[in-house]
Amino acid sequence: MGRSALVAILTPVDTPDDPRIDDFRDLTTADRRPDRPGGRGLVIAEGVVVVRRLLESPYPVRSLLGVRRRLEELSDELTRVDVPAYSTDADTMARAVGFHLNRGVLAVADRVGEPDPAELLGRARTVAVCEGVGDHENLGSLFRNAAALGVDGILLGPGCSDPLYRRSVRVSMGHVLRVPFTHLAGTWPASLDTLRAHGFTVAALTPAADAEPLATAGLAGARVALLLGAEGPGLSDEALAAADRRIRIPMASGVDSLNVATAAAVAFHAVTGG
Amino acid sequence: MGRSALVAILTPVDTPDDPRIDDFRDLTTADRRPDRPGGRGLVIAEGVVVVRRLLESPYPVRSLLGVRRRLEELSDELTRVDVPAYSTDADTMARAVGFHLNRGVLAVADRVGEPDPAELLGRARTVAVCEGVGDHENLGSLFRNAAALGVDGILLGPGCSDPLYRRSVRVSMGHVLRVPFTHLAGTWPASLDTLRAHGFTVAALTPAADAEPLATAGLAGARVALLLGAEGPGLSDEALAAADRRIRIPMASGVDSLNVATAAAVAFHAVTGG
Repeated sequence: MGRSALVAILTPVDTPDDPRIDDFRDLTTADRRPDRPGGRGLVIAEGVVVVRRLLESPYPVRSLLGVRRRLEELSDELTRVDVPAYSTDADTMARAVGFHLNRGVLAVADRVGEPDPAELLGRARTVAVCEGVGDHENLGSLFRNAAALGVDGILLGPGCSDPLYRRSVRVSMGHVLRVPFTHLAGTWPASLDTLRAHGFTVAALTPAADAEPLATAGLAGARVALLLGAEGPGLSDEALAAADRRIRIPMASGVDSLNVATAAAVAFHAVTGG
Repeated sequence: MGRSALVAILTPVDTPDDPRIDDFRDLTTADRRPDRPGGRGLVIAEGVVVVRRLLESPYPVRSLLGVRRRLEELSDELTRVDVPAYSTDADTMARAVGFHLNRGVLAVADRVGEPDPAELLGRARTVAVCEGVGDHENLGSLFRNAAALGVDGILLGPGCSDPLYRRSVRVSMGHVLRVPFTHLAGTWPASLDTLRAHGFTVAALTPAADAEPLATAGLAGARVALLLGAEGPGLSDEALAAADRRIRIPMASGVDSLNVATAAAVAFHAVTGG
C-alpha cells in the first residue's frame, strides 16, 4: 500500500486527553476484569507482532493507537479491517496511557465468551489442564509454549490467573489470543471426568519419585490432557489422585523444580513432538 | 543454633554509609565486569536460597548484609564459615544498596578463574555450547534448566552475556554458581573441534525444516554437546556448518521459536531424561 492510502486510514490525535483514545487511558488497570477496581476487561495488545495477532483473533478490536512508524508496519492488516487507528507521537501516547511504551503501538479489543469445554475437547488431541497457575508471566509463557508445540487448547482449573491480563498477553507473544482456552466447569477435580468422557488420558506432571519417567511413559501421539500445577506447591493431592497417570521429568537432586511453563514444554514435546 | 549463638556471629550496622558494607553500595553497577564503568566484578547473591548456594560454591564469599530474620534462616551455614554477616534494618539496607530489596539478604563474593575446557569436558557427559546468548535472563534460565536436567557444564562461545551478572545469578536461582562453565578458547567455530576431541557429538539446535526431529534423533544417553543460539537470529551459518548434526524441535506453523532456555530444556531432557 502507498503512503497516501495509509494516511487516509489513520486518524491523527494531537492531545493526550482526546476522548477518542479513552480506551487507552490508565492502561495499568484497564485490563483488569470488570469486577475489579478500575477494570474494564479490555484485551490489550502491545507491539506490532501482538497487535497483528489480535487483529487475526476472534476478539473484536475497538481501536489502535500508535506512532506513525509502527502503524505503517501494520498497513496491510489495517486496510482489511474497519477499525479506527489513531496516529500520534510517542510523548502524547505516553501521557495518555500513563507510561512510556517502547513498542509504539497498542490495540484494544472486547472479550468474547469462552468456548464450551465439550466444543474445545471435541476437536483437540493434546490439551493442558492448569491448577493454581496464578502467575501471569508463567501462564503467558505456558500459552506460548503450547502454541509452538502444537497443543490444541488449555483448560483452566481453580486458582489460575486471567490469560487475557495485559502482562500474560505480552509474555505469551499474543498466543493467548490464538490457543483456545476455557474454564473447566463443575467441582474440581471431579470435573476432570469431562476429559475422560472425551477420550483423554489425564496425565499429571509431578516431581514425585514414584511417578513414571516422561521419556518412557509412551505418551507420544496419545490423546493426552497434561495436568499442570504451580511451580512451588505443585498439584493438590486431590488433583493428583484424580489423574489417570502420574508422570515425572527426572530432576537432578538438590535442584528446584523447573518453571511450570518450561516443564510443560518438555512434556508437550514428549506428547506432540514424536 | 540458639538465638544467642547467632547474635554472636552477626555484626550490627546502623548507618547506610558504614564503610564495612561498601561492597554492597551502588549494587546496580558493582556486578559489572571490572573493565566496565563502575564495575568491580563482584558476584552478588540475593535472597536466602541463592545466598546459600553462593556459600556452597567455589566463589570466596566476602560478606553478607541482611535483615535479622533472613540471616537467621542462614544461621546453620553462617556458623560453618568465617565470613562477616552484617545485620541491619530494611531501610538502612535499601539506602546502602540504592533500592529496596524484597529478599532481605545479600552476599558478595569474588570471582574465580574459569576451569580449563579440557578439565570440564573430561568429566562431562552432556554439555551445552552457547553462541550469541546475550540476554542475561535467558542465560540465567538456561543454567537453571541445565542444573535441573543434569547437564554437566556450559561452554560459552562468542556473544554470550556474563553468567555472573547479578540478574543472571538471580534468574538462574543461583545455579550459575553450581553448573561449571567456561569460555571456549580459539577461533569460533573451529574451536568446536575441542568437543569432538573429547568424544562429544556436536548437535546444533535449529528450526531448519531439513534438520532431524529431536524425538527420533536418538540422542538419549549419548555424549552430546548441544549447540544453542540466541532466540531470534539463531545460530550463525558458520556454527551450523561446524556441527556434526542438526536437530530441530518440531514447531507449529506461524509460531515464533521457543525461548532459547525453553528449547534447551526440551533438548536437555531428550538427551539426559531417558
